[in-house]
Amino acid sequence: MSQGLRARDAGLVCGTLPAGPRNSIADVPDVRIGHRTLVHGDIRTGVTALIPHGGNLYRDKPVAAVHVLNGFGKSVGLVQVEELGVIETPLLLTNTLSVGTCSTALIRHAIAANPDIGRETATVNPVVFECNDGWLNDIQALAVTEDDARIALESASSDFAVGAVGAGCGMSTFGFKGGIGTASRRLDLDGESFHLGVLVLSNFGRAGDLRLPDGTNIAPDMSREAKVETEKGSIIIIAATDVPLSDRQLKRVIRRSGVGLARLGSFWGHGSGDVALGFSTANTVRHDEKAALIEQRVFNENRIDLLFEAMADATQEAVLDALVAAGSMIGRAGHHRPGLADALKHLPSREA
Amino acid sequence: MSQGLRARDAGLVCGTLPAGPRNSIADVPDVRIGHRTLVHGDIRTGVTALIPHGGNLYRDKPVAAVHVLNGFGKSVGLVQVEELGVIETPLLLTNTLSVGTCSTALIRHAIAANPDIGRETATVNPVVFECNDGWLNDIQALAVTEDDARIALESASSDFAVGAVGAGCGMSTFGFKGGIGTASRRLDLDGESFHLGVLVLSNFGRAGDLRLPDGTNIAPDMSREAKVETEKGSIIIIAATDVPLSDRQLKRVIRRSGVGLARLGSFWGHGSGDVALGFSTANTVRHDEKAALIEQRVFNENRIDLLFEAMADATQEAVLDALVAAGSMIGRAGHHRPGLADALKHLPSREA
Amino acid sequence: MSQGLRARDAGLVCGTLPAGPRNSIADVPDVRIGHRTLVHGDIRTGVTALIPHGGNLYRDKPVAAVHVLNGFGKSVGLVQVEELGVIETPLLLTNTLSVGTCSTALIRHAIAANPDIGRETATVNPVVFECNDGWLNDIQALAVTEDDARIALESASSDFAVGAVGAGCGMSTFGFKGGIGTASRRLDLDGESFHLGVLVLSNFGRAGDLRLPDGTNIAPDMSREAKVETEKGSIIIIAATDVPLSDRQLKRVIRRSGVGLARLGSFWGHGSGDVALGFSTANTVRHDEKAALIEQRVFNENRIDLLFEAMADATQEAVLDALVAAGSMIGRAGHHRPGLADALKHLPSREA
Amino acid sequence: MSQGLRARDAGLVCGTLPAGPRNSIADVPDVRIGHRTLVHGDIRTGVTALIPHGGNLYRDKPVAAVHVLNGFGKSVGLVQVEELGVIETPLLLTNTLSVGTCSTALIRHAIAANPDIGRETATVNPVVFECNDGWLNDIQALAVTEDDARIALESASSDFAVGAVGAGCGMSTFGFKGGIGTASRRLDLDGESFHLGVLVLSNFGRAGDLRLPDGTNIAPDMSREAKVETEKGSIIIIAATDVPLSDRQLKRVIRRSGVGLARLGSFWGHGSGDVALGFSTANTVRHDEKAALIEQRVFNENRIDLLFEAMADATQEAVLDALVAAGSMIGRAGHHRPGLADALKHLPSREA
Repeated sequence: MSQGLRARDAGLVCGTLPAGPRNSIADVPDVRIGHRTLVHGDIRTGVTALIPHGGNLYRDKPVAAVHVLNGFGKSVGLVQVEELGVIETPLLLTNTLSVGTCSTALIRHAIAANPDIGRETATVNPVVFECNDGWLNDIQALAVTEDDARIALESASSDFAVGAVGAGCGMSTFGFKGGIGTASRRLDLDGESFHLGVLVLSNFGRAGDLRLPDGTNIAPDMSREAKVETEKGSIIIIAATDVPLSDRQLKRVIRRSGVGLARLGSFWGHGSGDVALGFSTANTVRHDEKAALIEQRVFNENRIDLLFEAMADATQEAVLDALVAAGSMIGRAGHHRPGLADALKHLPSREA
Repeated sequence: MSQGLRARDAGLVCGTLPAGPRNSIADVPDVRIGHRTLVHGDIRTGVTALIPHGGNLYRDKPVAAVHVLNGFGKSVGLVQVEELGVIETPLLLTNTLSVGTCSTALIRHAIAANPDIGRETATVNPVVFECNDGWLNDIQALAVTEDDARIALESASSDFAVGAVGAGCGMSTFGFKGGIGTASRRLDLDGESFHLGVLVLSNFGRAGDLRLPDGTNIAPDMSREAKVETEKGSIIIIAATDVPLSDRQLKRVIRRSGVGLARLGSFWGHGSGDVALGFSTANTVRHDEKAALIEQRVFNENRIDLLFEAMADATQEAVLDALVAAGSMIGRAGHHRPGLADALKHLPSREA
Repeated sequence: MSQGLRARDAGLVCGTLPAGPRNSIADVPDVRIGHRTLVHGDIRTGVTALIPHGGNLYRDKPVAAVHVLNGFGKSVGLVQVEELGVIETPLLLTNTLSVGTCSTALIRHAIAANPDIGRETATVNPVVFECNDGWLNDIQALAVTEDDARIALESASSDFAVGAVGAGCGMSTFGFKGGIGTASRRLDLDGESFHLGVLVLSNFGRAGDLRLPDGTNIAPDMSREAKVETEKGSIIIIAATDVPLSDRQLKRVIRRSGVGLARLGSFWGHGSGDVALGFSTANTVRHDEKAALIEQRVFNENRIDLLFEAMADATQEAVLDALVAAGSMIGRAGHHRPGLADALKHLPSREA
Repeated sequence: MSQGLRARDAGLVCGTLPAGPRNSIADVPDVRIGHRTLVHGDIRTGVTALIPHGGNLYRDKPVAAVHVLNGFGKSVGLVQVEELGVIETPLLLTNTLSVGTCSTALIRHAIAANPDIGRETATVNPVVFECNDGWLNDIQALAVTEDDARIALESASSDFAVGAVGAGCGMSTFGFKGGIGTASRRLDLDGESFHLGVLVLSNFGRAGDLRLPDGTNIAPDMSREAKVETEKGSIIIIAATDVPLSDRQLKRVIRRSGVGLARLGSFWGHGSGDVALGFSTANTVRHDEKAALIEQRVFNENRIDLLFEAMADATQEAVLDALVAAGSMIGRAGHHRPGLADALKHLPSREA
């Protein structure tokens, strides 16, 4: 991770399973993240790209599943993932009103690598997620361009920043500055080491509801902040693993992201678009497969509690990671969000 | 097939794919069907048992999926099939009010073979389907006993009767006598032959709506029948295959049972409990599996249209099979249902 | 309807319920349709807009539901409709790769009428549907602009064209030229007349599979056409009604669009994105509602079979309407689709 | 409440919303609960009945919804609730292997009050929930009879016991003795007071994972207990309200039961059948309704966060209520579960 504080730097650890070496979604081999951050005038927004593996994603589609925790959201591409159990593009995350632009950018990106799309073969299903950064960002400006999406894709690396970067630039969480966070857990199965990694775009939670892993309640100084009456915003949770899960197993695993959110103090508010996507890099579905029958390695579901626990813990920690890394920000119309790291310093009996 | 007319004996063929050797769900190796038929006084009911393979089903669980076409129905066991993608007992079909009894019978059947159930290991998920035979049968009598269920299970064979037998005894379809029907299609994949077989418990359709494969509309003599104003009743569709489909693929395949029903003239009426279950015998999930990772043969989804077409055709033909085989019947309170085979003889320019 | 042949002009009638006065989705009061058609060079595409009522849709949200018959599709906005049971923008239909652009156009359209979006209030959920017109259209050109979407919206009228217009310009159906079609049914309830109207964007079906309402099979002259091996393409089905259905009731009704497709000869092929949306104009959800409890008129579900039958019939007839109206077309790379109306003239014993 | 300690007697309070006068599901007018408890030899089981209102439930069906948090469970009746959005019988809760018997008991109970069932009108959809009490109870004995179910129904009262009673007799939770618990929250809307009440059958959670509302972790003395390696068991959550929620709104509300479970320390384990059902007594669907259109009071969804928060809080507190009330128990084969109330006394700095 190239910059800034992480959740563990502030002493925040969730659960008892071991983290991966980077404590990042990039602990899953070949997964890369890129950001394009836009900060000028009243603009506080951006794009985050996730590239699931190093090959041609349209030709080798990772097994995937989606789960909608609360569907007050505008993410695109979920219908086809639900039907076919695969993704076939990188994933883009951005602000709510820039989903169309990012979707078009993914289409051009796929056609560039696969000129037969929409001609000799099928079309392509872009997958784009969003949260509403309208408190700090002038979201009506529709500031994100196709070029911004392209730059996020091109900058993808296993070594990436967290906090107020990319799509996370203008996001808020429990009244604090939110953004991009990540965490991972190591899974030991049959003598091999695998990983489950989580990336969140965190923009949810009612100010005053946040709980730290030890149960401590922590709130921003509300006299300085706008009164927030409802749990709004949203959270996007992306899980990656190299365990050969089926789409149904992935769906069961990512559903446990809701556990992580609940432990943090959320009740999955009405106005929040809380959406999870999980994918496995262990098996891909080949676009041009000719054989009717193929051999694959699959996962024994009797062991899935390990992944459930990892998912709950890593989601909880990834949100705290975003909060700790994000710092404070002043945005559109002078709106302000404080950073959690500062607030932690003022907690009694805590040495962050 | 041990008795009676089949759909093809009456010249009724659906689609262009080749049927299996028996044109029956028992063309899928190891699948067996048993019936217990109850006819006395006002009782016209029974139990039909389907045994998916010859081993211990609790120890080796077939991959399975369910699809609810219209959920005005009382089948049991679907929640767990949906979550885990397997079945772990034989399937029983019976009348609506005997589901509880058949469910208990399956539990005792499973405990007898697996004394650790509910003690050293988990409990068991019985799967029971139903239709309402209350027009011809005194359904309030709750005439089916656990012994009847046991007898159906014990009589299971790859050579089984269709028509007004087992759970089909008192059923009605499009104003005609309905019941149990079956059909299969041969699927050639990578030089191997596989089968998709369908068994229906047919009790649906508004009198007057039935269409034969050539588009001919055929109705019972309504002056003799009770006026039927709504599409009531239900249909249960069970699909078996030895193609190694995943649970998601099975779900997509069995959804096409709705195509078969629509071709027959149904619009999936409000009061009808139309439920489909599909299973594959190619892969089983082992209850006592210790390894975390297992090798399996899976199916290339690019080829799934073949199974969709087979499912639509076999469902349509299995219903006609039930209708042709069922004969006419007089039941409770003198209620009557004519047989389709007789009506076909009176069609102009048709030699059934 | 301002131009061209309709299904009934060719003698094609589905079911026995009475049609509305226009036999169109515009028989539901206030529903309007607009088209923007693009034909130049290798471009054969466009946009079709549906405006559910004459007020501010963001402020008065029609009750709505979606149903995915087969999710090999890229429509956007469905997650939120599923969660909240409302739509809050007009509906746009276009080609698969222009969804992002149309989505952005709807966002700007909503902000123009509601400047508080993304600032003092929530964001907005654009709903856009698509089919792949890549056989006749150079879909890679991404020819549709935000201006085209705006023009379609502005041209909306209760008097609109069907056939190869708007989003229907480059579509194909069962090997014939497809496009936009419509039909309606009159529903008499408690002495009042209501309507259910259907609009389809028809681009599905394997050449050779089409069946007319009387069961006749009809195919294009395949020697002139490209060999089509699989059921590809897609169909979008929009249903409107002024019956005060709940979102759950709407979902049950639109599911019956699958009956109409099956009667036409489709088995809902793997590669087809078959998606239905239904809305009612009878009740709207007010964005700015302050009262916690509101009085509403609701529909007695015991009577829903009437709507099921209307939905099946109107879907079937709307597809035939598109086929009859569409004429023949030569498009990209000289690709050709014949019109159904011509083929009907050559059927023996038929006077179209 | 007629006996025993409640959660609040032990100082355990969840959230900040006010409880109803009884802090019980019976704060929703007309809701009644009855128990039949079986304790003899190795039997530790029973039946709990919930009667939603005082009228004929088959004739006046409460609006209802189900949500499956984790479907490793065998509850029956959910398919029809999902399709139609109503319940039409009382709810029974029991052990996993007695579901069939309780289902039959509900059928006889409905026929007794409605002799037209299965004759002049449709059949009936019994709804039965279950957890596996096999650790303390000899579940293979299938000890529950139809008479036991009848007695539970007949004993229903707004004043009912919690803890190790009825279906809760043999249940376990986080390694402690579990059982039946309840809680409610008062909801003030437009100047009227309404309630949301929750009843749980609590049998879930891994020993060592339980967290009290203040974040304290508490575990049974594991040296005395069997080693529990996985999160097994199940939990049933029933929510009642007199707010006129629609089935979709109810489904959204009861989904928040998962928040309550997560706060308690659960990650919704693989082997757990976690199922929620919610109903509203404000609107009923009349079986014999003739009018096509009816006036109803509905709920403004903008205000639903209040119910989400109430649901999360009441679920969490109802589980603690079961734990505090249940006491300790020795059951089958000498298996033992300690009571939470005792463990609380030994917590440092707590005066329960």
